[in-house]
Amino acid sequence: MSLKDALQWRYAAKRMNGTTVSPEKVSAILHAAQLAPTSMGLQPFTIFVIETPALREKIRPIAYNQPQITEASHLLVFAAWTDLTERQVDEYMSDIMETRGVSAESLAAFRKSIMGFVQKNSIAEKKEWAARQAYIAFGFAMAEAALLHVDTTPMEGFDQQAMDELLDLKNKGLTSITLLPLGYRDEKNDILVNVKKVRRSAEKLFVFL
Amino acid sequence: MSLKDALQWRYAAKRMNGTTVSPEKVSAILHAAQLAPTSMGLQPFTIFVIETPALREKIRPIAYNQPQITEASHLLVFAAWTDLTERQVDEYMSDIMETRGVSAESLAAFRKSIMGFVQKNSIAEKKEWAARQAYIAFGFAMAEAALLHVDTTPMEGFDQQAMDELLDLKNKGLTSITLLPLGYRDEKNDILVNVKKVRRSAEKLFVFL
Repeated sequence: MSLKDALQWRYAAKRMNGTTVSPEKVSAILHAAQLAPTSMGLQPFTIFVIETPALREKIRPIAYNQPQITEASHLLVFAAWTDLTERQVDEYMSDIMETRGVSAESLAAFRKSIMGFVQKNSIAEKKEWAARQAYIAFGFAMAEAALLHVDTTPMEGFDQQAMDELLDLKNKGLTSITLLPLGYRDEKNDILVNVKKVRRSAEKLFVFL
Repeated sequence: MSLKDALQWRYAAKRMNGTTVSPEKVSAILHAAQLAPTSMGLQPFTIFVIETPALREKIRPIAYNQPQITEASHLLVFAAWTDLTERQVDEYMSDIMETRGVSAESLAAFRKSIMGFVQKNSIAEKKEWAARQAYIAFGFAMAEAALLHVDTTPMEGFDQQAMDELLDLKNKGLTSITLLPLGYRDEKNDILVNVKKVRRSAEKLFVFL
């Protein structure tokens, strides 16, 4: 299936039917998020993959009681770094050296430019920068899920502070950004299942210069 | 080709070879961005599609003289809404009514919830909210491009204010967020063309609960 057809097929399911998404498909969806490009390659986020029903029961009231939280097969929680520190930059440098077999010296200019970014931006700015990167991965996960005919419901509406407490994110230098239940649409009970997709027209959305 | 293979193939090309991307492929890439899901369906952004070489020549110094700006076939500029107003919400309501053939009354609760969002958030918060939505579309454009074997180079590093002035964005209620040159990699001159992709390991990126 083409991405175009997959994206026409997808919608934000309001109800899911509890069917399990296979480990192979979950793995492919996560892999797409892992391959998403990010600013300077830093991938400043962690993705929590929550299958345990009891934990999703606890999350449901935090997410305005949206039924997909528990009707889904898995719940992804995208959590962005709350800061970018020299230690994290050096961990990234080690990853590059190991993967590419290159020296620290050969990366000195790159490291310097990242450290310039670290020093130039406030913690609030770096937190927002990290959140934006997480959105690219969030999108890639949805695109891959659609290609595999797995439903997803992107959710920004939840109690971020309660979620951070539940998953102990603050102590991990993280903050929750978005939720993404993975599962299968409940065709009988979702009133939006066959509703026509609304998108701004090309005339409104694009400007050709 | 699978998305997985496409994403393994893609990288952020540092040099492009000037080859034109066909109108069909540009159109498919834009269509993926148009189909990207966004918060409440509002799509709070405009995508500028810049083919004119003279305009790209003007943009290049604004983007730290990165050669892909002019070596690309097309340059996409993602510009997010700087605010979300009642007028924009009502335009969206009209789009829904027209596409789905439903009444304003049937959308009253939905409209109310969006207006609650409009009133609850500061202009700065809405601007950041809009930018995050643009990142989903930005990602979808890159995913579709990779599937079509069109190269892209995501760029956040440019003089946002100069870009906003050049494209007269402020008067349009927009601000530039990211750039995305579309083109073909210059295999001879791009030193990164065959370099191994570096990604955080699954152990670091994911937490299974």
